[in-house]
Amino acid sequence: MESEFKVRTDLAVELEEDVKEEQGKSEGIRMERESICDGRIHVTKVIIENEQGERTMGKEKGTYITLESEELANTSEGYHREMSAALASYVSELLPPKKGRLKILVVGLGNRDATPDSLGPRVVDNICVTRLITEEIGNVNMVEKCKNYEVSAIIPGVLAQTGMESTEIVKGVTGEIEPDVVIAIDSLAARNTKRLNTTIQISDAGINPGSGVGNHRKGLTYDTIHIPVIAIGIPTVVDAATIVNDTFENLLNIFKMTKGLESINKVMSEFSPDEKYELVRELIEPSIASMYVTPKDVDATVKYISYTVSEGLNILWSNDI
Amino acid sequence: MESEFKVRTDLAVELEEDVKEEQGKSEGIRMERESICDGRIHVTKVIIENEQGERTMGKEKGTYITLESEELANTSEGYHREMSAALASYVSELLPPKKGRLKILVVGLGNRDATPDSLGPRVVDNICVTRLITEEIGNVNMVEKCKNYEVSAIIPGVLAQTGMESTEIVKGVTGEIEPDVVIAIDSLAARNTKRLNTTIQISDAGINPGSGVGNHRKGLTYDTIHIPVIAIGIPTVVDAATIVNDTFENLLNIFKMTKGLESINKVMSEFSPDEKYELVRELIEPSIASMYVTPKDVDATVKYISYTVSEGLNILWSNDI
Amino acid sequence: MESEFKVRTDLAVELEEDVKEEQGKSEGIRMERESICDGRIHVTKVIIENEQGERTMGKEKGTYITLESEELANTSEGYHREMSAALASYVSELLPPKKGRLKILVVGLGNRDATPDSLGPRVVDNICVTRLITEEIGNVNMVEKCKNYEVSAIIPGVLAQTGMESTEIVKGVTGEIEPDVVIAIDSLAARNTKRLNTTIQISDAGINPGSGVGNHRKGLTYDTIHIPVIAIGIPTVVDAATIVNDTFENLLNIFKMTKGLESINKVMSEFSPDEKYELVRELIEPSIASMYVTPKDVDATVKYISYTVSEGLNILWSNDI
Amino acid sequence: MESEFKVRTDLAVELEEDVKEEQGKSEGIRMERESICDGRIHVTKVIIENEQGERTMGKEKGTYITLESEELANTSEGYHREMSAALASYVSELLPPKKGRLKILVVGLGNRDATPDSLGPRVVDNICVTRLITEEIGNVNMVEKCKNYEVSAIIPGVLAQTGMESTEIVKGVTGEIEPDVVIAIDSLAARNTKRLNTTIQISDAGINPGSGVGNHRKGLTYDTIHIPVIAIGIPTVVDAATIVNDTFENLLNIFKMTKGLESINKVMSEFSPDEKYELVRELIEPSIASMYVTPKDVDATVKYISYTVSEGLNILWSNDI
Repeated sequence: MESEFKVRTDLAVELEEDVKEEQGKSEGIRMERESICDGRIHVTKVIIENEQGERTMGKEKGTYITLESEELANTSEGYHREMSAALASYVSELLPPKKGRLKILVVGLGNRDATPDSLGPRVVDNICVTRLITEEIGNVNMVEKCKNYEVSAIIPGVLAQTGMESTEIVKGVTGEIEPDVVIAIDSLAARNTKRLNTTIQISDAGINPGSGVGNHRKGLTYDTIHIPVIAIGIPTVVDAATIVNDTFENLLNIFKMTKGLESINKVMSEFSPDEKYELVRELIEPSIASMYVTPKDVDATVKYISYTVSEGLNILWSNDI
Repeated sequence: MESEFKVRTDLAVELEEDVKEEQGKSEGIRMERESICDGRIHVTKVIIENEQGERTMGKEKGTYITLESEELANTSEGYHREMSAALASYVSELLPPKKGRLKILVVGLGNRDATPDSLGPRVVDNICVTRLITEEIGNVNMVEKCKNYEVSAIIPGVLAQTGMESTEIVKGVTGEIEPDVVIAIDSLAARNTKRLNTTIQISDAGINPGSGVGNHRKGLTYDTIHIPVIAIGIPTVVDAATIVNDTFENLLNIFKMTKGLESINKVMSEFSPDEKYELVRELIEPSIASMYVTPKDVDATVKYISYTVSEGLNILWSNDI
Repeated sequence: MESEFKVRTDLAVELEEDVKEEQGKSEGIRMERESICDGRIHVTKVIIENEQGERTMGKEKGTYITLESEELANTSEGYHREMSAALASYVSELLPPKKGRLKILVVGLGNRDATPDSLGPRVVDNICVTRLITEEIGNVNMVEKCKNYEVSAIIPGVLAQTGMESTEIVKGVTGEIEPDVVIAIDSLAARNTKRLNTTIQISDAGINPGSGVGNHRKGLTYDTIHIPVIAIGIPTVVDAATIVNDTFENLLNIFKMTKGLESINKVMSEFSPDEKYELVRELIEPSIASMYVTPKDVDATVKYISYTVSEGLNILWSNDI
Repeated sequence: MESEFKVRTDLAVELEEDVKEEQGKSEGIRMERESICDGRIHVTKVIIENEQGERTMGKEKGTYITLESEELANTSEGYHREMSAALASYVSELLPPKKGRLKILVVGLGNRDATPDSLGPRVVDNICVTRLITEEIGNVNMVEKCKNYEVSAIIPGVLAQTGMESTEIVKGVTGEIEPDVVIAIDSLAARNTKRLNTTIQISDAGINPGSGVGNHRKGLTYDTIHIPVIAIGIPTVVDAATIVNDTFENLLNIFKMTKGLESINKVMSEFSPDEKYELVRELIEPSIASMYVTPKDVDATVKYISYTVSEGLNILWSNDI
């Protein structure tokens, strides 16, 4: 597939699949795979090592860890605990080293009022904060348990509600409280519907411009806020272009096998990339480009996955792995 | 367009557009159009008079009134009041005649936790109920003002949350409190993205099986609950098949004008309906069939439209038109 | 303490404390105590056996099981699991015996929008329903796991929102779906602030008129709906009268020990019960009588306790004790 | 009443009532009263002019405008519009003068999840922001209409949820976006239950430490954030101490008139202030001191009042008075 047809994805693991298909393009990109929990969780690490890798992948330098499991949206208690513990362990790998208490600011990106974009705010609703917590205010047992971590959290809202970029708000807050690291949780767009509600991506490259369901216009990265940013992203929507693209592919395949249309493949192969691009552009109605495509049961899956992520973070800081 | 290609719509006005395109098919169907509020609101009445009309439209006998305005999702106060008053007036036309107090049960269909399906519950959150309301419990001024209406309301939830069909719950409740009429509010699926957040449909045909964003498996109609049902529906999603269909149409049009593909139209016209059906069926991934397609700002528009509808109903029973 | 001074409580265990203090009044009342989980949970069973017991306690015949633990509002995962399992086990004791699948309707009483009264709706938000659930609609793994229970659930809302008594709605629904037992979850009023967020009461006597934070005007009992009702209640508010009463007691105690006021106790003891009653009635401002008194962190505790209860019920029907 | 018995209030108008009762104490305090809207809204301005006034009132220098109406929680549309317009007009008086666009940051203080403390967040949910809003993101008609104001908004959450003081978050954000003025909305505690849901206080003295339902530990004032702060406060709770105090007063009055207790007044008047203080301290259970006292219908009144305030602010910036 030519890059002209590449549709939007926030998942490095999806881009990596493309890259593999093309020869001689994986310089500066390293990939590792493993299975944990008796094969119930598949882990893929994509490490983009240099500018060459950045160009190939169209993603920033950094480590992208993907945890995949078909049962992520499953409601079984036992299973969730397993995934939460895995999340805690891999996030822990990416934390900056520090002597003494590590100061963490958790940022729940997205729109609380739009179900598929509400994952970040929901995670923050259920994490334990420890900074400034005294007996009068909250759970001091938890503060005691998390003595190596000073945790604070914010739900910045979205531009349409606040008139501010999330990055402006986070930058202002980090200027005041000076955390050592930001952990940002966000809903992502995937290219493949099979990724929805089965995948968690953890990355030390932060949140880059244009990514996320809300299409953040400014990035939330070390470059913008001068603090390391670990991003935890879960795909909850597919881009409308995914459907167009899948349809297009399916259609061409059918044409190939249809009496009277065998020639179409030959014709299409004569299209220049620009002509093909123009074709797809025409196919997508402008009104569709600003739409979500999301499963009908997104409310239930977002609820369960947000519990898994918040439990994972609580496990991390209570050293309860 | 042949019925094989008909995509799902809950809007009679959209079906009527198809019907018009085909000659000699409008027996049993009557249509009236008018503009009100200096042309800011367009009103279409489609009246399906008999079984012939039912077959042609694929909809139950009854009156379907569509209020359309591009500014429905606009936040201007003045505009909303205008639309609310229009809604009150047209719903009032469909109410059953009664001497004395009319007993109304308002039903907010849909899923509070899934933004595009939350319209019904949100409307009920903001309507004034008057049944059993005493000074100790609520607003008696409002009860006084609404003296011709005894209003109660319920949010039945959705099957995945309750394990019950909405119809089962509503039927049980109407058995207890015996209203004269049910007014059911629901989110709908439209065929055309331009209908989203611009259209309100009012009908005395109730909610029919398979309609609504939640795809109600049983209808909420006079036949199922033995009480007249007025349905107020607002399209907030388009079916994923809409995108497939639009893409397909666009593609065919482009093929017609593309060098080397002029013949495709001729080829397509030789397809039997069954072959065409097979083609579309193949094009739609099964995983996409159970998806919402909805605008990214659906949270804001659902909020404003729900205020418009609840204000319309409150105007109706406080005789404040 | 004379009954004239009795303040409102929904907890049998609090009434039982009074009864103990008075000699020869416990006919028809049986009490059992035990500690479980290494003494972390205290269990009290009060069994009201006959009309004599009903008169003494001012409560309906039935079994009232109280689970108490100071850590109920604690956020520790391990602790919650323990309490959830205990809840599952004691609710199980009260279920009616049945061959084959037991049909349960869970009812989340209370007002979702008023934090201390939102416990019932929040529990229902997180329980697994199994009735009518197919692969298309929800989690079939859970249905498989719960094969001995057919679970449905409803959040009826409160009179000020619906214009209907909860009992009317539940009666209508049970008429349609004919469950074997109703499990109703409700927020309660306690007399003692120490009970808040430390106590769960389970009873097969149902919900009686005037009980609950919302002061249900009609009961939800076998007598009203002709189906056994198990009530799960958690105290989240104290009645304003509790504060008046505590203040009054404290004041009298201080007066006894205050120079120049030693005689007041003697004077007070000469008051007739009617005079004392008049005194308390005067002390309570009418505007205060319709108020909640609730801890400032009620939002956090209601959230955690609702998880404990919903997990307990899910454990019950998945036989996962 | 001696200051030892003064109970907590956030309302200057309530303190002013005390001050009036004491002779020669109103130096540095100016008061103006007027009625508007045919006497339906009563306006009181208390202006604290200097340090003498600050000492007398126990409040910071500044203007405190109170709008009172018994119908504030009434659901009548017409009435609300009247109050909203009054609010717009009085807030407008306190805005700093500026040539060109005035940059406003609206801050919704309080806890979204605790009903009586949710007023600030609810107001922000319904105001129109205009900063950075383009056609792609939101309502550009509104931006056009509000061309003299650049509005942004934030809901900072509460310390127990974020681990941060609201002031830290607001200070960080104002450092980034540099508004000309902050408008902070907060739920307040009143001394008198009659103030609940009838009163709006507008002040240019900001939010001071210890005020608000959430007991802000740090102030949000010009001194802390170096930007003028206009506070809009609505009383939604009374302090538990109010009930103790009212009970105590009522009790003493009854004692005076009770046979055998006439002497108590004489005895009480011999108490030293310290002894009286000790008495009240004993009367209040420590567990009660951290409690809310709030009307049972607080969910409905908070909803309606939040609409009134958000509409008032939207009127202000759209110059639609």
